[in-house]
Parts: sequence; C-alpha cells; structure tokens
Amino acid sequence: MAKKKIQVGLIGATGYGGVGLIELLINHPSINICALMAKQETGKPISAVYPHLKGFCDLPVFDPADPKCPHDFDIVFYATPDGVGQKEATKWLNKGVKVIDYSGDFRFNDKESYASYAARIGKPKEHANPDILHSTTYGLPELHREIIANSKLVGNPGCFAVSCILGLVPALKFGLIESEGIIFDAKTGVSGAGKTPSPLFHFPARYEAMNAYKVTGHQHVYEIERELSLIADKELKVTFTPHVIPVSRGIITTIYATITANANMENLREAYETMYGKEPFIRIFSHGEVLSSTDVRGSNFCNISLTIDSRTGKLIVISVIDNLVKGQAGNALQNMNIMMHIEETAGLMYPGNFP
Amino acid sequence: MAKKKIQVGLIGATGYGGVGLIELLINHPSINICALMAKQETGKPISAVYPHLKGFCDLPVFDPADPKCPHDFDIVFYATPDGVGQKEATKWLNKGVKVIDYSGDFRFNDKESYASYAARIGKPKEHANPDILHSTTYGLPELHREIIANSKLVGNPGCFAVSCILGLVPALKFGLIESEGIIFDAKTGVSGAGKTPSPLFHFPARYEAMNAYKVTGHQHVYEIERELSLIADKELKVTFTPHVIPVSRGIITTIYATITANANMENLREAYETMYGKEPFIRIFSHGEVLSSTDVRGSNFCNISLTIDSRTGKLIVISVIDNLVKGQAGNALQNMNIMMHIEETAGLMYPGNFP
Amino acid sequence: MAKKKIQVGLIGATGYGGVGLIELLINHPSINICALMAKQETGKPISAVYPHLKGFCDLPVFDPADPKCPHDFDIVFYATPDGVGQKEATKWLNKGVKVIDYSGDFRFNDKESYASYAARIGKPKEHANPDILHSTTYGLPELHREIIANSKLVGNPGCFAVSCILGLVPALKFGLIESEGIIFDAKTGVSGAGKTPSPLFHFPARYEAMNAYKVTGHQHVYEIERELSLIADKELKVTFTPHVIPVSRGIITTIYATITANANMENLREAYETMYGKEPFIRIFSHGEVLSSTDVRGSNFCNISLTIDSRTGKLIVISVIDNLVKGQAGNALQNMNIMMHIEETAGLMYPGNFP
Amino acid sequence: MAKKKIQVGLIGATGYGGVGLIELLINHPSINICALMAKQETGKPISAVYPHLKGFCDLPVFDPADPKCPHDFDIVFYATPDGVGQKEATKWLNKGVKVIDYSGDFRFNDKESYASYAARIGKPKEHANPDILHSTTYGLPELHREIIANSKLVGNPGCFAVSCILGLVPALKFGLIESEGIIFDAKTGVSGAGKTPSPLFHFPARYEAMNAYKVTGHQHVYEIERELSLIADKELKVTFTPHVIPVSRGIITTIYATITANANMENLREAYETMYGKEPFIRIFSHGEVLSSTDVRGSNFCNISLTIDSRTGKLIVISVIDNLVKGQAGNALQNMNIMMHIEETAGLMYPGNFP
Repeated sequence: MAKKKIQVGLIGATGYGGVGLIELLINHPSINICALMAKQETGKPISAVYPHLKGFCDLPVFDPADPKCPHDFDIVFYATPDGVGQKEATKWLNKGVKVIDYSGDFRFNDKESYASYAARIGKPKEHANPDILHSTTYGLPELHREIIANSKLVGNPGCFAVSCILGLVPALKFGLIESEGIIFDAKTGVSGAGKTPSPLFHFPARYEAMNAYKVTGHQHVYEIERELSLIADKELKVTFTPHVIPVSRGIITTIYATITANANMENLREAYETMYGKEPFIRIFSHGEVLSSTDVRGSNFCNISLTIDSRTGKLIVISVIDNLVKGQAGNALQNMNIMMHIEETAGLMYPGNFP
Repeated sequence: MAKKKIQVGLIGATGYGGVGLIELLINHPSINICALMAKQETGKPISAVYPHLKGFCDLPVFDPADPKCPHDFDIVFYATPDGVGQKEATKWLNKGVKVIDYSGDFRFNDKESYASYAARIGKPKEHANPDILHSTTYGLPELHREIIANSKLVGNPGCFAVSCILGLVPALKFGLIESEGIIFDAKTGVSGAGKTPSPLFHFPARYEAMNAYKVTGHQHVYEIERELSLIADKELKVTFTPHVIPVSRGIITTIYATITANANMENLREAYETMYGKEPFIRIFSHGEVLSSTDVRGSNFCNISLTIDSRTGKLIVISVIDNLVKGQAGNALQNMNIMMHIEETAGLMYPGNFP
Repeated sequence: MAKKKIQVGLIGATGYGGVGLIELLINHPSINICALMAKQETGKPISAVYPHLKGFCDLPVFDPADPKCPHDFDIVFYATPDGVGQKEATKWLNKGVKVIDYSGDFRFNDKESYASYAARIGKPKEHANPDILHSTTYGLPELHREIIANSKLVGNPGCFAVSCILGLVPALKFGLIESEGIIFDAKTGVSGAGKTPSPLFHFPARYEAMNAYKVTGHQHVYEIERELSLIADKELKVTFTPHVIPVSRGIITTIYATITANANMENLREAYETMYGKEPFIRIFSHGEVLSSTDVRGSNFCNISLTIDSRTGKLIVISVIDNLVKGQAGNALQNMNIMMHIEETAGLMYPGNFP
Repeated sequence: MAKKKIQVGLIGATGYGGVGLIELLINHPSINICALMAKQETGKPISAVYPHLKGFCDLPVFDPADPKCPHDFDIVFYATPDGVGQKEATKWLNKGVKVIDYSGDFRFNDKESYASYAARIGKPKEHANPDILHSTTYGLPELHREIIANSKLVGNPGCFAVSCILGLVPALKFGLIESEGIIFDAKTGVSGAGKTPSPLFHFPARYEAMNAYKVTGHQHVYEIERELSLIADKELKVTFTPHVIPVSRGIITTIYATITANANMENLREAYETMYGKEPFIRIFSHGEVLSSTDVRGSNFCNISLTIDSRTGKLIVISVIDNLVKGQAGNALQNMNIMMHIEETAGLMYPGNFP
C-alpha cells in the first residue's frame, strides 16, 4: 500500500524562494503540494506566473486569507519576507502543523537578539510573538540536525550565513584559527535580492556592475557571530562584507582567518573531513582546485576549499553555494525531510546543469 | 525482482552534449551508465572535468580505443562531431547494440543528401558508410515516433532544425500556409557552438555581442527542407538565418509564412492542437503570451505561440527550445526511451530552474 | 575671440536618453549645457544620479517648472516619454528656441497618422498640439538632411525605425526589391526599454532570457512604413517583429525582402554605395563579414551588410546600431549639429570601446 | 603654426591592451599613430581585426621585424606579454625613443625582485637585460609623477596593483592602519585575462561563473608589497586574493586593515584628501555611497570609498577601476603625457558610457 504523502502548504509561492521550492517538490517522492498561497497573482495558476511549470504544477495561487484555500497540511513553509511568519506561526503550530520560515523571524532564540537583527533591516524591534522564540531552531542541518529532527518550528538560515558558517566551523571548532580578526568577503548573485524589480537590479544597470553594499551593516552578521560563538565557546565579532555580482545564482565567500601555531594543511584538512565527511551536501576540495559558483548552481551542495598563506599566516577558505538552493529552498527542504523523519536527501539529489 | 537496467555507453562524454546526457541519465530510473568515452581528458573521472557531477558520477573517461573500456552496451550514444559515428556505427549494430548519433552523420537516407550537407560544413562529401544510410531514422519523435521505435540507428536532429520543424509543421500539414517564402529567423545561445573555446565565444568578445552568421549557408537548412517537403508533399526551399546571442542556452526561432485564404486563428490553433495535443513535450501558447527562452531552459519542452499579422497576411510562429535538451541530449534520451520501449518521458520530466 | 557657445537645455536629463546626451555634450566643442531638467531626482547634482559623470558634469537637476531654472537656450532637447514634448514645444518655439523631441510626438505630420501611432501605445489619440504637426521634421539625417537644416522642430526617430529604414532604403529606392512581403526581424538590447525597473527587465529574470514581444503590434511600424512608402512612392505594409535580448545596448535587424528580376549583388552594392558613400555614420560591409552589435556600441554608426539568398530569391540585410546612440542621443545630437549649422559630426566621432 | 605631433609606435596592437590604447590615441590632440605592430593578424588593417575602428584607424598591422614598418617614433608602447619588452627596449632607448611597457618586465629595479616575480608566472628568472633595471620607473603617476617625468623607460603597473595600492596608500602613509594583516580581496572582469580564448573564459563556461584563482599565488603581490613597504618604510607582507567575475571590464578591490588607536573617519578622510585632492583621476566617496564598477567603466578614474567597522576595528576601503583603462592603456597614456611633458589629462577626459 502506498504510504500517505506529506501534505505541504507554501506561503509566498510566487517569490523566488517559493518557486525554487515548487521545482523541488514536483519530483519529491513523498510529498503532495496541498496549497500555494501568496498576496500577489492570486487566482492565477502558478504556471501562468512561471510558465516553465506549465504541466508540472498548475495549482492556483490562493490569498492566504481565502477560506476556500486548502489548509490540511502536515507542514507549512513561509517563503515570505521578514515579519510575516512571526504573526502566523502559532496558528499552525497549535493545529499540529510544523512550520519552516525562510526569514529572520525564527533564527533567534531571544527577543534581544531578534531586536538587534530587526533594527538592521528597519523592522520593528519587537517580535510579534516573543514567547515562541525559545522553541525555534536554527535550521542548519550540518550543525543542528538532531534538534531540527525534534523541532516543530525552524528558522531557515540566511543565504550568506550558510556559506560563511559552513566554511569556517571546522577550523574554529578544532582550534586551528584565532577567533579574532575573522573576515568574510562574500559575493552573491542578484537573485538573492528577490523578485521585486529595483533600479539597482534593472538589467541595463546591472549587467556589467559589481559593488559592495551594506558595508559593516548587513543583518546576516548576527547569526554568523552567534553560531561561531557557540562553536568557539566565546563571544566573537567578525567583519562581513557582501557584494552583488551580475550573475543570477551563487554565493562565493572568501574567508580570512589567522591560523594558530599548531595549524597546518594536514590537521586543517582532517578537521573538515572529520566534521563533514559524512555530510550529504558538503564537498571538500584541495587548494589547487578552482571552485566555481557554477559547480553548485541548481544543486544543494556547499563546496569548500582550504588554503594556507604561509607568508602571512592566514587560512583562506573558499565556500560556494547556490543562494536559492542550499542558501534557501533546498536547505529548507532538507530541514523538512529531517523534521518529517524521511530520507534527508529525498528530492534533493540533483547535480544541476552545466553550462 | 528488479528489472535489468539498460546498459548505456556514451562516446563524446566530455562535450556539452555528453555532460547534458549524463545529467539526465544520473536520475533515469531504468538505465546504468556503463562507460564514458572521449578523446580528451581520458583517465580522469568525469567529475574532475565537470565538478558539479562529483558524487553523482565519478566514472573514468576512457579512450574509445582502450581495450579496458567496458563495452557490453544495449545502446550507445555518439555525442561527437560530424564524421565520427559514421565510421563506427556498424561495429555496434553488428553486435546488436543500438546507436544514437548527435551529428549529421545519420540524418539523411541517401548519400546525395548527405553530400550536400557535408559540403556546407567542409567535410568530405563521401559518407564513410553509405550502405547503412537507408536504415537510419531521423530522430524527431513528434514526426517519426513509430519508425524510431523500430530503429536501431537514429540520427538526432540539429538543434535549430528541431525548433524550426516543430514550429511550422502543423500549419503546413493542414494547408494553412503557402509553401513558398517561408523564413526562419533563429537566435541561439552560445552553448550551441560547443565546448571548444574560440575568439568569437570568448567572454569579453561575446558578453554584449549579437550577430547573424552563416547567412544563407547554415547546414541545418537541408533537414528542415527535407522534413517540410515530406509534410507538404512537394519540394520546398526556405530561408534560414541563424544568430548568436549572449545567453548560454536557448533557441528562439521566429517563423514567417504567408497564410492561405482559408486560414484563421481558429483553424491554425486547431491544427496545432490536433498534431500536438498529446505530445508530452510540446506546449502551445496564445498570441498574447510572451514566450521566453528561460521557460524551457533545462527542460525538454518546445514552447510554441501563433500570431497572424492580418495587415500583411503573415503567420508568425515563435518556437522556443533549450538547444542542449530538446535540441540535443534530451531529445536523444527521448529517442532512447522510444527505441528501448520504455516510458517515453522517463528521466525527462523536469521543469528546469527559474531564475 | 572664442565663438559663442550654443546654449542647450535638456528635459528628461535623468533617463538613459538624457544621460547619453550629456556624455556626448561634455566633450562637444561648441555647446554649453545650460540646464538639466527632470521630474525625478530634482535638486541633486546629475553626478549623484550617475556617478560616472562626477567631475565632468555636476549640474543640478531642476524641475522644469522651477522658475530658478535657467532657460536662455538656443535649443532644447526633450528626452522624455511620449506626450510631454507636444504640450510644451510651442512655448519654446515662440521664443525662438529650437526643439528636438525623442518621442513619437513629432514624428508625424498629420493628426491621423499620430492617432494610429498613439493608439498602439495606449496614449490619447488626440495630439495636444495638432497645428504644429505640419511643421515638424522626421529627424533621420540620411534621408532628410536638408529639411532638418531648416527646421525648428524635429522628431527624433524610434530606435528600431533607424535600423530598419537605413537598412532597406537603397534597395527599395533603386527598385531592386519588391515592395510586398518585407519582413523586419529586430533584436534589441534591454536599455531600449529605458531606466524604469520592471519585472521583465529585472536582472535575474532577464540575464538568460530572450523573447519576442508586441508581435504585430509595435508602434514603430508606422514610421517605418511611412518612410518606405515615401521612397517607394506607394503605400507599403511591412511585418515587423521586435525581440528583447539580454544585452544592454544594440539593435540588430535582419531584413528579408524579395529581390526583383534585375537585382544582383553588384547593383545592390552600388545602390547602397550611391546613397551612403558619403554618409559620415554609415558603414557598408560585405556578405562574408560578420556584423556584431559590439562593432557600433558606444558609437553613432549604422553598420550594414548585404546578402542574396539565391536559392530563395531573398535579399537579407543586416543592419546594426547602438540603440542609445544612433538610435537615440547620438542621432539627436547629429540633428542638432545640422539644425545649428555646425559640423554634422561634431562631438560624435567616437569608435566606442572594445571589449 | 601647428605644433609637431608626438610620433607613437605600438607593439602588441591587436590585444586588448593595444586596442584600448588606439581608442584613446584616435582623439588625442597631440599625437600621431606612426605604426601598429603585432605578431598576429599582420598585413591586415587594424579595423579588419576590430571593426569598430573602421574609419577611425585603418592602419595596417606590421610584423615588428618587417623592415617596411615605420620606426621614427618619439615613444613606443609595448602592449605585450611578459618577456617581450625586456629584449628590445635598449634598441629604442639607444635611438632616443622612450619606452612604456605594460608587462612586469620593467616594474622592478633589481634582478632579485624581478626573479621572484618571474618565478610566479613561470618565466625564466633571469631578466634579459638586467643592467637597465636600475633606470626603470614604476609608472604609477599618483606616487611617482616626478620621476616618471624624467624617465625614458617606464613599467606600467599591474591592473590589480593599481587598485590595491591607490586604495590603501594614504591610510598607511599617515599611520592610520597597522602594517600587519592587510588583506586585498580583488574581483576582476574577464578582459583582464586578455584576448586569447581559453576554456575558463569561454562564454558558456563563464557567464554565470565566479571563482577565486591563484589563491596566495598571484604575481601582482610583489609590486603591491614593494610600493606599500616604501610608503610604510618597513617590509610588509599582504594577503591578496584575486577573483574572476563574469563582467568584461572592472576591478573592485575590497581592502581590510586594522586601524590604529588614533584613527577615525575624520583623519582618514583627511589623509585621502591630502594625498589625492588634486589628483585628476581619483575620486573619493563617502561610506554611504555605493561604488559600482560601472562608475569607472571606460574611464581612467579610480573611485575610492572608506568605511570603519567600529565593531571589529577594521578599515574597509573599496577601490574601483576599469582594468583596461586606469589598470592598463589609460594609465599608460597618462604616463606618456607626463613623460612627453604635455597636459597629463590629454586624451583621457572621458566619463565612459552608462548603461
């Protein structure tokens, strides 16, 4: 007898984070897309918004408030901007529906941390539902797999944070770098900014344009520092500079840290192999191998390479992900698989296309 | 008991046509990649050539002449340039191995037609194996599905030809356009030129550059005219102009034909629905819907829209494919499925990623 | 003694058409930019809007209605959307100030023609100032140089129209093509759509996307037909299909026409040389030479090549311009030079940059 | 009476560095291009290689060894790879002809420094002409203007070096940063790799691909360290990581340094204004202003912004140039103007085009 499929609801279906999840769910062996919801394009089939889905998923887009919208979900995804999920999560949790939220709404366990984060993005410092913050889990499976498996409410990490944290944790955990002076120089494709047009991402203004932005002021720095501090067991401050690059998909983060006296390529390599050797979505490369953002485009992988600059005593880590997959929808689906206790890699084993 | 998997050999594994097939075969439910062969990069795992395959397919690349290379195939793909498959196909056919060739080597049934084609691409006019030409099948499933199913040797169509032929056949077949004065204005992404670097496709020379090329002289015109002539039951000549556009993937062909007196949007639409209504990989759109090359990127679909310019009496068809999928590896796999009598859509039902 | 400089006013300074003119005016030997005006970004220096101008032009952007805005111009450019210039031109003309308008406001000499055009772009069919239409000149110097020189009000042509008309006029004028069945298949860069962000031109949605749009319905068809009809001395209808391509700048139009019995490469070539041999901004190329959009990027040139498809009796013309230069600001400046009776090429002799 | 024009010879005319210089020389008021030389494309007019130059510069390309090649130059440019200029410079210098070389051949004053550099790029460690090294000048006008003015042999800086050195010198000179732990994270467009096609820069392999390369091993690090050490008056080691980005033109370098106790935004800003306030080609921007690579595309400017990360005590400098202009041909021309004692900005005052 066929096993009952997991019933999935998706709020924010028409954004890049939504469509990225739909693309994966279409061929997922154990789920059924129960309802697609969004504030825009309601009433249309999703394939009228994204014609590549025609014949694969022609479900209508419901307004989340529409009473005709199906709602018997096992799990619901909020692929929505900051501030939406925090107002509604309790409603679902109370019905026994698990929740995964893409935004920063549930990445922090206390209201003070959330307030710092919210201030950076110009949102109200008060969380709409501070009492559930203690029960949220930061959804980075490589660090918190067990807790995620027992969670009902998961905050999916920021895309930059995934590449920064995964890139550095083993070196830090095994005491092979100093905790001071860590620098993350991150370069992202434009899709990270989402679907809404703006002057900076208008094709003619962007096709040849690269720039740093939010220098010293990007909100992902908090979750990076929090996770690294947990690993180092001490309070860390890091320098994080994001750049926008005229590609659609991909984050490449170049990480600089000062190596400790006992560090060398052998024990560094060993640290990464020890932590990540069995990870299904992390691949370690050697210094000599060039990591390109296209090696992970369309896949849920994080590729990592390690180099020591012996002249200056710096570890240089290159960490590469697809911001819309491991940095967003793919990682969210990985969380879902863990939370629903099915194969963690289900619906995620694609290499992407080249070129 | 698990059904025995189809054993596949792939010659030309390191080119774009090869890697595109590998990407599809990895998740195909009924096949096993038995051996990868190429003249270049031999001895390396294919994932060292294409790092996105790491963990998905790490098979070594064999020289086709290497006696250690596995060769117990059920079917072999030649993802090779013109002139390779024609020398070797008989060897496989004699062993009962079916053959699909990507090049023009087996697209023609007589040596005279082949000679015209070969002359245009600067190849010797004599086919290396003219005696088997009569047994080859032109591998466009939408037109020749039954014959393909009974074929042992299939010539996969040219990428431009797929978009041109599929775009116009119904109108021609149902007598809704004149057979004179047909014009195909095709725009292709750069991957159509393959993997070998050249000055024209060097990134700085290409990123903002669009141009027509081989004006009046592109070799795909022969198979287009042959197929259309078969449909029209009379000798046709067409004008075909290819352009290179700075995208990686995609062909959009704009087709102009003079409508006959009895043609109108209703019977045109009906003609296309009649021919293509049950086709798994053709989608018909209305005049008002904008067809973008990204709607089929990474998928095996051909999207088609129809417009009548009533001021000038022209039918304007827009026909869009991914040149590396429906225009190459995807269509080849569709042929394989038909030839091996398994589900025609097996391993091909992906919508692609957006953006 | 230094000659008095021509005083120039520019309305719509912050759009692509405005900044393109400023870039040229900066190094023009005989003009002075007197005032920059726009509805947006008022009060800022233009170099705060376009940082590449910092140090070259730091003039403030005035609201056109601001009484403090300088207004002692010799000539004023309206680099504004349809509907703006027609309301204000008389005001300037009455003061003896010449006017060049980029939009369709002054491309037609009678209100009926304007009404057809306006209907296609969703504007009111009534021209705001129909009485001055008879005195406007269509600003294509290669066809109307003398009249432009004596005009006070010039409508700068549509970018597509420039490439279509220049590409075909000699063949038509010398009777070497039929006037029926002419097809223009045009491909434009995204900057042609202007500076305002929109979903279709958002970088992630566009970087790999090419599409046809306004199939049979683009408004430039009227001026193309009008100019060609004047040349042919009979009413012409043409088929015109524009496509958007993910480059920033450039239009490449592929033109198809049926050659007449007496036409051959020699007299075709001669026709183009006769008409264009002394044109400062037209370059004729041979069939074998590939014309790329980057050959004219950043320059005021129109490159043209001619091919006869002897199999089908078609003339195929490739016509290439930079849509923002010969298709807009450069052509407008060329008109200004003619209208002000200075060297026609002044401030325009740049080859552009490659790559 | 017209002043005699400076006679210029250009060796390596067909590469990107050559054509970039030709584009500038065409409109330079005081020079005459006397001869174009290259090893490839000899015999053709340069405009057959670069069609955008047609009508602007149709000089033939000579083999440098061709006795028919004009050679009465006042100054000669070697826009050639490493190893060419060092063999030939003496020949010109002996005839009283000044020499500017784009490569690393003349960037070092002693053979030991050159040997370290040469080793990194796989060239012979022995300089072909070590006796003239003491008389070469490092051609960065902002640091060495006076010496350049009296030099007959100038080594034009590496493109990365220009952006790194200009970005940091004032902070270092005024003692506002520590000399330890300086990090340069540089991102360059693909044109920096030159005109020769290669698999990594093939359009389909590059259009969405960003990657770090030569991690810890790029040869420009030597001239950066040498210049900074001169400024700091002590031996410095720096970390320098270059990245290739899918744009054609532009370098954006993000520089990280630890501020000293007395440093603040006021004295940092003052340091940069003091050093660069009168520089014709440096523009200083505030922390809040986003610097884009397109702000300097096609121009000879270096744009710089300063930020202090008070949480971590780091100075973050963004330094942006066009790698083919201020990073190559433009800077070389600036050197020529200085060496020939004409206006330093002659032929260089262009803002570039946007978009």
